[in-house]
Amino acid sequence: MYHHIKKLMYTVNVGTPDPRFGNMLLEQFGGANGELAAAMQYSIQGLNCDDPDRKDMLMDIGTEELSHLEIVGTLARMHLKPMKKSRDAAEADPLVAIAGGGGVTLCNSMGDAWTADYLKITGELDVDLRSNIAAEARAKIVYERLINFCDDRGSKDALQFLMTREITHMKAFTAALESLGKDRFSIGRIPPTPGLVDEYFNDSTGVGDEGETDARGPWNQGGSWKIVDPPELEKGVGGRDRARGRASVQELNAETRKQKPKKMA
Amino acid sequence: MYHHIKKLMYTVNVGTPDPRFGNMLLEQFGGANGELAAAMQYSIQGLNCDDPDRKDMLMDIGTEELSHLEIVGTLARMHLKPMKKSRDAAEADPLVAIAGGGGVTLCNSMGDAWTADYLKITGELDVDLRSNIAAEARAKIVYERLINFCDDRGSKDALQFLMTREITHMKAFTAALESLGKDRFSIGRIPPTPGLVDEYFNDSTGVGDEGETDARGPWNQGGSWKIVDPPELEKGVGGRDRARGRASVQELNAETRKQKPKKMA
Amino acid sequence: MYHHIKKLMYTVNVGTPDPRFGNMLLEQFGGANGELAAAMQYSIQGLNCDDPDRKDMLMDIGTEELSHLEIVGTLARMHLKPMKKSRDAAEADPLVAIAGGGGVTLCNSMGDAWTADYLKITGELDVDLRSNIAAEARAKIVYERLINFCDDRGSKDALQFLMTREITHMKAFTAALESLGKDRFSIGRIPPTPGLVDEYFNDSTGVGDEGETDARGPWNQGGSWKIVDPPELEKGVGGRDRARGRASVQELNAETRKQKPKKMA
Amino acid sequence: MYHHIKKLMYTVNVGTPDPRFGNMLLEQFGGANGELAAAMQYSIQGLNCDDPDRKDMLMDIGTEELSHLEIVGTLARMHLKPMKKSRDAAEADPLVAIAGGGGVTLCNSMGDAWTADYLKITGELDVDLRSNIAAEARAKIVYERLINFCDDRGSKDALQFLMTREITHMKAFTAALESLGKDRFSIGRIPPTPGLVDEYFNDSTGVGDEGETDARGPWNQGGSWKIVDPPELEKGVGGRDRARGRASVQELNAETRKQKPKKMA
Amino acid sequence: MYHHIKKLMYTVNVGTPDPRFGNMLLEQFGGANGELAAAMQYSIQGLNCDDPDRKDMLMDIGTEELSHLEIVGTLARMHLKPMKKSRDAAEADPLVAIAGGGGVTLCNSMGDAWTADYLKITGELDVDLRSNIAAEARAKIVYERLINFCDDRGSKDALQFLMTREITHMKAFTAALESLGKDRFSIGRIPPTPGLVDEYFNDSTGVGDEGETDARGPWNQGGSWKIVDPPELEKGVGGRDRARGRASVQELNAETRKQKPKKMA
Amino acid sequence: MYHHIKKLMYTVNVGTPDPRFGNMLLEQFGGANGELAAAMQYSIQGLNCDDPDRKDMLMDIGTEELSHLEIVGTLARMHLKPMKKSRDAAEADPLVAIAGGGGVTLCNSMGDAWTADYLKITGELDVDLRSNIAAEARAKIVYERLINFCDDRGSKDALQFLMTREITHMKAFTAALESLGKDRFSIGRIPPTPGLVDEYFNDSTGVGDEGETDARGPWNQGGSWKIVDPPELEKGVGGRDRARGRASVQELNAETRKQKPKKMA
Repeated sequence: MYHHIKKLMYTVNVGTPDPRFGNMLLEQFGGANGELAAAMQYSIQGLNCDDPDRKDMLMDIGTEELSHLEIVGTLARMHLKPMKKSRDAAEADPLVAIAGGGGVTLCNSMGDAWTADYLKITGELDVDLRSNIAAEARAKIVYERLINFCDDRGSKDALQFLMTREITHMKAFTAALESLGKDRFSIGRIPPTPGLVDEYFNDSTGVGDEGETDARGPWNQGGSWKIVDPPELEKGVGGRDRARGRASVQELNAETRKQKPKKMA
Repeated sequence: MYHHIKKLMYTVNVGTPDPRFGNMLLEQFGGANGELAAAMQYSIQGLNCDDPDRKDMLMDIGTEELSHLEIVGTLARMHLKPMKKSRDAAEADPLVAIAGGGGVTLCNSMGDAWTADYLKITGELDVDLRSNIAAEARAKIVYERLINFCDDRGSKDALQFLMTREITHMKAFTAALESLGKDRFSIGRIPPTPGLVDEYFNDSTGVGDEGETDARGPWNQGGSWKIVDPPELEKGVGGRDRARGRASVQELNAETRKQKPKKMA
Repeated sequence: MYHHIKKLMYTVNVGTPDPRFGNMLLEQFGGANGELAAAMQYSIQGLNCDDPDRKDMLMDIGTEELSHLEIVGTLARMHLKPMKKSRDAAEADPLVAIAGGGGVTLCNSMGDAWTADYLKITGELDVDLRSNIAAEARAKIVYERLINFCDDRGSKDALQFLMTREITHMKAFTAALESLGKDRFSIGRIPPTPGLVDEYFNDSTGVGDEGETDARGPWNQGGSWKIVDPPELEKGVGGRDRARGRASVQELNAETRKQKPKKMA
Repeated sequence: MYHHIKKLMYTVNVGTPDPRFGNMLLEQFGGANGELAAAMQYSIQGLNCDDPDRKDMLMDIGTEELSHLEIVGTLARMHLKPMKKSRDAAEADPLVAIAGGGGVTLCNSMGDAWTADYLKITGELDVDLRSNIAAEARAKIVYERLINFCDDRGSKDALQFLMTREITHMKAFTAALESLGKDRFSIGRIPPTPGLVDEYFNDSTGVGDEGETDARGPWNQGGSWKIVDPPELEKGVGGRDRARGRASVQELNAETRKQKPKKMA
Repeated sequence: MYHHIKKLMYTVNVGTPDPRFGNMLLEQFGGANGELAAAMQYSIQGLNCDDPDRKDMLMDIGTEELSHLEIVGTLARMHLKPMKKSRDAAEADPLVAIAGGGGVTLCNSMGDAWTADYLKITGELDVDLRSNIAAEARAKIVYERLINFCDDRGSKDALQFLMTREITHMKAFTAALESLGKDRFSIGRIPPTPGLVDEYFNDSTGVGDEGETDARGPWNQGGSWKIVDPPELEKGVGGRDRARGRASVQELNAETRKQKPKKMA
Repeated sequence: MYHHIKKLMYTVNVGTPDPRFGNMLLEQFGGANGELAAAMQYSIQGLNCDDPDRKDMLMDIGTEELSHLEIVGTLARMHLKPMKKSRDAAEADPLVAIAGGGGVTLCNSMGDAWTADYLKITGELDVDLRSNIAAEARAKIVYERLINFCDDRGSKDALQFLMTREITHMKAFTAALESLGKDRFSIGRIPPTPGLVDEYFNDSTGVGDEGETDARGPWNQGGSWKIVDPPELEKGVGGRDRARGRASVQELNAETRKQKPKKMA
């Protein structure tokens, strides 16, 4: 059950309203990486979660994001209010001005209605936690950009509070993921095909307009990595055959089939 | 520039077409975690990327995902083809049957048109890599579920190939992220507010319907964690004040303002 | 600020899960007239509201709808859970099964992602209250239909609770609207053009396939109503002119311009 | 069947085109509360309606809204036309300029494509009429805002005509609703749970940043209202139990089950 | 101005309602190639059109499509009506059943809300006519598929009427396009780059899984066609240079710049 | 299988970045008629295509459009890059600035996420080719408008290249359609109703505000055309009957039923 406390989690103050900045702020209200997206993603993951401990964490953080939504909305509302009377201000966001009378709506800075297509919810806890870590990283950088485009001290302070909390959450989600004690590349129960899983396909070749060439790094060399041409490119462009010095994908899969997948929970 | 080679990256075979399974497969063709989403997310991140080495990786993998899109599409097409003539098959996906004549379209299993709202692209390389790691984890679990609902050997083999490659990519993105040598919780340039960043807010309280209670774990205890009531709850529900035994958020922010943020690149 | 209490506002019990009914339930989770739509519509109206008393009401009810969202989600989750393992159950909602692993997502019964396009928020209090009255009426009828399609006693009880609360809210919004003391057809500050406002245009004419004819009722006769042909139809189809026995729209508007609109607040 | 008469229902004149105002006008062409939304909502409700008299009204008004759509479109087209040749004008709405060549499209002022998600159609006549009353109230306030941001006499006159008609329709829908002779809080056939239906839950508590406190008004006191803490809050935050001086929700529902719901038509 | 005549343009009769077929029919009501899409595309093109003769045609046909929308909606309504009372029927389209009470809404067969993203309106008459020819071809094939999946004589007759009219419109749009007297590959005013315009790039190479090879046909040989490797492929995959036996794209463009583009109207 | 070559198909150069022009360019990156729409439409049609020769063409051109997507994206990226640091530049597209850090995303010039609703794919080759001809005509005119609003020589050159290629493709699709040897108004297998197919309904009548009247042209006179009032208008507005001097639609359909439709392939 939810309970609302009238005081904001962080009291906001605005000096001079800046409607165009208010419009930008909507990114964190009704935008893809904004507070509603965070609140809904974590809370619904929590609702689906069978692990009571991490469910508690998902609800703690999901609920905090709802409180953030209220802060950002209040801040944006203060910056957008002049739209009600000023045609010039209204041009900063005609949708907010004409349809909303200067009030906030669940849209981003370009007037796109918030959509649940922004959410990443899979019903698989460790996968969801990875999505959350990434979500917090995105939210952090968006707040930083807003701070960089803002001149108002009170607004910057509120954004600094919100930005900080994203890092807090990122740390919590990371700790929760690690506490599951799973191998970091083990997702679900069916193992990937050995051999094939270590092949890095060189799908982009040649020299770029700025002189870029094929690069090597820990993402394709060292450890068990084997850098290879992708199956058809290896045979020569146009399908002119060349010898493949490794087991075919079909052979690898046949091999895998012999292994027993873990039982589905 | 792109070049198309007529052979699929993985040749698909289907025994008996299963239109309802073909409909499910569309999740990985035009769905939120499907191959077009992967191809576009990585390729456009690559296009925005100023680091030539990791750009190469993004283009390698983005291009491979395009080849996967073609594989999944071909597979789905084979399963959906009976829709053209059979009313019963057509009921598995009326949109594919009536509007598509049994051919695939860029929709998911519930007929929702693919949308770029699925993508996570921020123009910040380390953030994007985190989004990609999560994306690969999601794609892996979706392929696993498809395999579990599939009876056709050839289809399962193709799905095993595709599922394996997601783990390959997950490993590559992880290595690329780590090779950046950044602190794992350091995003962008403006530091979070010290102190506040270590406070875990206990926003969800009480005992649940199944007896769930507040949980402790590495996500809120140990290290620098400090578990606290969120600001307003601490004061007592209803705003009846209680002493706060820690610096106010405003004081913490004031402290932070004295620190110099790193220069924006 | 929001606070989450682990117990549901209404404890749900489900006998035998019914995945196809769980799918239907999603209408009230992520559907157009569902609980998230209600929660967001009222809470954001509250955020925009300058009248502290009615703002309190909007926050009270908006928060209750969040608690309802949690109830519906928990109920749907119970009905959908078999999707994880059963191919037959999975066919009830392939999106929930394949992408969600049997967990709920913010979609309706046809897999459409929730969108803020469902919301009606204008920043004009009396207008918003009218939108809310209508929203509650819609939610009530949707719950009734779900009850009619449901065989499970525990689910029916929970739906009865939720359905009842919609009527409670409908009564509260109606009372709040009436307490504003405004004329029921006076919206905003610019008055409508007198005369023109009382003309009912007979735009649909003739006899229908079932014998339907033009109807008269309190919506076009009695009081100040004057039923007329719409401007161009009056002149005869094809524009062959006939005398208009009433002031032209232009004359009426000119008349209106002389009136002083109320000052904008 | 529809018939088109070449003359507009209201002849529009524009002095100096104002592309940024033309962009704003699109709110009433392809926006959420615009004329297509009205036309479609009422006409499709009419198509579903089994009551021939009110069906006639729905078709009359739905058809008039189509005529309004044509007026608004013509007006917007006149203001947007300079976009074809002027880069400066084009910046007012790049979508209209680049994709539309200065012609109108079914988008709102922020370029969002019109969507049927804006519509409220339930197949329950009295519910639909409530949605229509609210829709007309919204359309009226949007026209008023457009008038306030407009400098052109001819445009203002056309908008005054359109704004007036919304009030006409609002009156008609209200009369039609009342003529059904139903209790104003009786929706559908299943009665709400007595007792519970009169409880106003105080979900938002405390003192706000501007000193707001819990408010009392006809929406929660007087008549049969009983203001109560919501179930779990009543027990004390954190689930510490307190006595509940009223029947439990379960008891109330059990009571209701004994009542016979009206037969479904 | 629009005028509604109560009789349908084509009177529909339905024997036994078939809810799953009713669901399929929605493709032509609220689907991508359906009657609303046609009505809106042509009518709004007409609204933007400066050529009074072809504007008349666009309005004639746009209005007819509105009458078709009404026919399809009435037909679908008849097939969907059993959803109100039968759970089994309701499973054919839970959205129509639960949210719509068995009444039609502006959705397609998979419950996707109609969107103006379906429309093709460019403000360039000859381009719009090409879009309309294609739109009619699509609508025709969709009606044919519906006829093939339909068992009800009355429904088939209505669909035959509607299907026939699409061909009528296709012929009209084609005649209108040809009557403009423009070269069929001349679009707008800026001429394409000579030479380059005749080069067919062979972007897909090799031998496919079914033995497909590069094909020659009137789309790449004969007339002025010159089949070539695309710029970078020509140099050899990987960018290893080979001689290009034709003017570079830059040279061709430089040539074109010397030509005077036609004046913009 | 796809292969990426690091060099662009056309090397782009930008003098002074122009963020507002960069924003306009997004129409061809993530817009309705842009390069992704073209690439996906043709490639997926290719995937569904059973005719190996035209499939090759669809893949050739679909792949070239992917290369175009990369060119447009690179060009837009160059123009949008200043958004990262300049608040003024950021106001040109707050979504790109705040959420994207100045990098491109799959949106159009108004920030709308790309959607597969833009695509026209029917699984019927000749129909698809008509959709492609129209698509190329649209893309051509959009490029022309971009050129007209652009001051930068290098950008204009790249756009000239891209615009030219659209005409190339339009010619190829036209040749491919004609090479099928089908009657140009014969779509699918079920013939339209004779007689009815030649009736042009005069649905829009009267004299317009600019003096427009009913027009005659090759789209409604000559050949087999017969211009008639639509069925219900013929009877007189309001349903007052008049004699119909031609076979009823029902009679025509009955006639058609006697004809044997071609066998479905």
